[in-house]
Amino acid sequence: MGVDYRRSVRIDLNADLGEGFGAWSARDESVGHDTALLGVVTSASIACGFHAGDPTTMRRSCEHAANNGVAIGAHVGYADLAGFGRRFLDVAPADLEADVLYQVAALDGFARAAGSRVSYVKPHGALYHAVATHPGQAAALVAALTAYGSGVVLLHQPDALALRLATEAGLATATEAFADRGYRPDGTLVPRGEPGAVLHNPAEIAARVVALATTGTVRAVDGAAVPVAADSVCVHGDTAGAVAIARAVREALVTAGVTLAPFAPSAG
Amino acid sequence: MGVDYRRSVRIDLNADLGEGFGAWSARDESVGHDTALLGVVTSASIACGFHAGDPTTMRRSCEHAANNGVAIGAHVGYADLAGFGRRFLDVAPADLEADVLYQVAALDGFARAAGSRVSYVKPHGALYHAVATHPGQAAALVAALTAYGSGVVLLHQPDALALRLATEAGLATATEAFADRGYRPDGTLVPRGEPGAVLHNPAEIAARVVALATTGTVRAVDGAAVPVAADSVCVHGDTAGAVAIARAVREALVTAGVTLAPFAPSAG
Amino acid sequence: MGVDYRRSVRIDLNADLGEGFGAWSARDESVGHDTALLGVVTSASIACGFHAGDPTTMRRSCEHAANNGVAIGAHVGYADLAGFGRRFLDVAPADLEADVLYQVAALDGFARAAGSRVSYVKPHGALYHAVATHPGQAAALVAALTAYGSGVVLLHQPDALALRLATEAGLATATEAFADRGYRPDGTLVPRGEPGAVLHNPAEIAARVVALATTGTVRAVDGAAVPVAADSVCVHGDTAGAVAIARAVREALVTAGVTLAPFAPSAG
Amino acid sequence: MGVDYRRSVRIDLNADLGEGFGAWSARDESVGHDTALLGVVTSASIACGFHAGDPTTMRRSCEHAANNGVAIGAHVGYADLAGFGRRFLDVAPADLEADVLYQVAALDGFARAAGSRVSYVKPHGALYHAVATHPGQAAALVAALTAYGSGVVLLHQPDALALRLATEAGLATATEAFADRGYRPDGTLVPRGEPGAVLHNPAEIAARVVALATTGTVRAVDGAAVPVAADSVCVHGDTAGAVAIARAVREALVTAGVTLAPFAPSAG
Repeated sequence: MGVDYRRSVRIDLNADLGEGFGAWSARDESVGHDTALLGVVTSASIACGFHAGDPTTMRRSCEHAANNGVAIGAHVGYADLAGFGRRFLDVAPADLEADVLYQVAALDGFARAAGSRVSYVKPHGALYHAVATHPGQAAALVAALTAYGSGVVLLHQPDALALRLATEAGLATATEAFADRGYRPDGTLVPRGEPGAVLHNPAEIAARVVALATTGTVRAVDGAAVPVAADSVCVHGDTAGAVAIARAVREALVTAGVTLAPFAPSAG
Repeated sequence: MGVDYRRSVRIDLNADLGEGFGAWSARDESVGHDTALLGVVTSASIACGFHAGDPTTMRRSCEHAANNGVAIGAHVGYADLAGFGRRFLDVAPADLEADVLYQVAALDGFARAAGSRVSYVKPHGALYHAVATHPGQAAALVAALTAYGSGVVLLHQPDALALRLATEAGLATATEAFADRGYRPDGTLVPRGEPGAVLHNPAEIAARVVALATTGTVRAVDGAAVPVAADSVCVHGDTAGAVAIARAVREALVTAGVTLAPFAPSAG
Repeated sequence: MGVDYRRSVRIDLNADLGEGFGAWSARDESVGHDTALLGVVTSASIACGFHAGDPTTMRRSCEHAANNGVAIGAHVGYADLAGFGRRFLDVAPADLEADVLYQVAALDGFARAAGSRVSYVKPHGALYHAVATHPGQAAALVAALTAYGSGVVLLHQPDALALRLATEAGLATATEAFADRGYRPDGTLVPRGEPGAVLHNPAEIAARVVALATTGTVRAVDGAAVPVAADSVCVHGDTAGAVAIARAVREALVTAGVTLAPFAPSAG
Repeated sequence: MGVDYRRSVRIDLNADLGEGFGAWSARDESVGHDTALLGVVTSASIACGFHAGDPTTMRRSCEHAANNGVAIGAHVGYADLAGFGRRFLDVAPADLEADVLYQVAALDGFARAAGSRVSYVKPHGALYHAVATHPGQAAALVAALTAYGSGVVLLHQPDALALRLATEAGLATATEAFADRGYRPDGTLVPRGEPGAVLHNPAEIAARVVALATTGTVRAVDGAAVPVAADSVCVHGDTAGAVAIARAVREALVTAGVTLAPFAPSAG
């Protein structure tokens, strides 16, 4: 059973990429950060110019992702470059819908020019949190994806309102878990700032992700095994040890016989 | 011959639309400016967010154009909202190429959501002037359209360097004349500020456009009939009498039996 | 007593000015809007480049205000040009404090170059509403004014949290009423969208402002005379009849013997 | 004479600081870059939000500079965040004048809040190059400083047109040399990309700066001693070894008995 079981287990690894802007993009590359992550993940959520990402960076990120067989996701955010999209912005739904459609289409232009396409959408920062509960903004996000068509998949954490609305609208959806975050017994994340919110040990993180992929559960802060539905695991990209953690996760998954593959492949 | 001749004459009327931004867009609409022009022209060059145009305005402009059977063009410009794209910006070609690709793709998202598509690209303001002669920027524009694919047509005035490069690259091109501008005997425009540079009389302008459409010539400032190749005639959109002039031109063309039709129809 | 009384009654009229941006500023001027208002009001709240207003427009607005003896206020807003500052932005207090200090100082540069100075600060749009109740943002606004020094006065509606914090911090404050808005019996505004929220009749509005200036009360929607403390009366600038209303208010006040004067004069 | 001579020799070291933006500022600080430079230089040219620098970063940079006794300069640039101010922008002089005045005043607000003031202005990037020769933009820069008043000094390289116009306008000026750049026999810089354009050896660079400070000459690429008038020496801040080079320069100057002091101290 072990062999058969292992062969059937698949999971996706996603990370945020192309989060520079103008002159500040060069620094990311100088440390080889994005390039390294593209050798590890199977899906890249690429910033689209509203909270980060300029056209040249977007284009290069799409080319690198396409060349590495990494699926391309539109990491859409609020129009807030100064705040990196981390601040809630009370955009009217009709405007948010247009903002999202604009970003997805712009990135898709680069993805297609690179021989790939935008196969999924993941909201960024404060927008990610907003569409988990905010009816107007969640509906606007779903309306944008519906208007865009072309089968893009919405990626979010389980129980996000936007996922439910997307399903009701007939869109494909996928769920993600977070490799380096602690979980509460109810399956929600331990809030940042509380004990156990963020994990740092690559080996421990890798072991958790393997457990998640093979058993569908993670060990919560109270020790209980809590079920977490995850088509993808997010390996954070903006921390110091991010690449090391991502590599440890990938290696452990491969060793455990888990197949790494995009949840939303770009191939037509 | 009259009947047969008339039936074969076709020309396109283009105007710039969607040139508001955020709160400033509402004012355009309050005066009915864009709505009026969409009832007159056959092609709409819509701003894409870099020099003007926000996502909501872009979307609405695309919907209005699609509903009126008006072809949609991407009016691409420099990333210079403060200067409305009217100031030369010495962008590196690789960055300009990405900037143009971004804008075309973003607008195309709205065009397709409205059931149409971007069928042509016209540079705006200082970029329009730059690509007429600047080798690096002209090549970058052409490279962007080549990368985008999907058969978009480049629209510019005759003899623009970008048109020649586009032809060499295998792209479709189209030429435009200006309804309200004076011409010199060599077929170039009388520079703004010189006598005869700008015409204001709707009837006179309309008669000139009819002559252009039916004879392929315009009367230059010295009285000579100068040949001007034009697939489209630009009726300026940002002047007080713009709508009145555009209507006079259309009526005169229709009366003269000229067929008004997009040079680059969006229908597949 | 009539004569003495009249002589002692003073009030300020304020309006928002310089709310264009780049190419969109020219339109405001083409209709003579700002120029007309500057002949009517005694205080001008000038946009500082974050939600509206570019440096050239700011400079010209300051020069016009200074030339007309109109006091200059910094109309500070969120960094949200696309949203005209009308959307709540969850800025961290430290960042908001810096944003406000930046805007006040920038405008003051133009005011001083014009021989005047920024004598008061009025938050704009969503920031205006936020600092009425949001502890962090209200405190940030007050901290910015404290850091800036030079005795700027904070203008807001009575009972705004920011006014109370400003008073506690030792800053000067002033209150405003709204000429064209309906009031509820408790002295708060009738929310937009409800019956009686906005008044349109210039004569009626003028009579209300005279009553406010001379008796300190306005007639609420239920007919009761409700006390409203107001050092200044805001005449809205962005509606069609704004100039006509402002003129009617000014004339009625002058006729009633009320002295019109800035609550925070710029003269040292 | 040696002792007396040494005692009378003074020079300033300047570097660019606060060149982050939003989330990208944090990275600069994480490497301790700006903090380290502030312990070395005597003048800090701080970005003002147009090509780099957000209000929070500007404020912190001013506070750090003031706490270190480092003079504060406004590093003014084109309104081109995407291009980091490195691309020529054909701004109309009146607009450029307002843009510069805006930036200087905004930074001065933070400088004054920190107990210092903007004591000099240095144009950044493409604007630096433009005002060396472009009559309209050079005049606009000078007009802005004249309008701002308060005795700010203009810093540029010798022979820049803007310096000459500033002198004619009665403004104070100062000249700078570049620590890590090669010079041609005529006293101009070896263009980037040519052999000898950029020096990398800290000891060699330090020796050159000492020679410059004590003899008023630098060794040109052909070996000749060429006179270079310099009130300040720019130590570049954006290269990998920048801090090491700056420290070597400072140590060598101190050892040589040269006094390091701002050319434009902020103390009234």
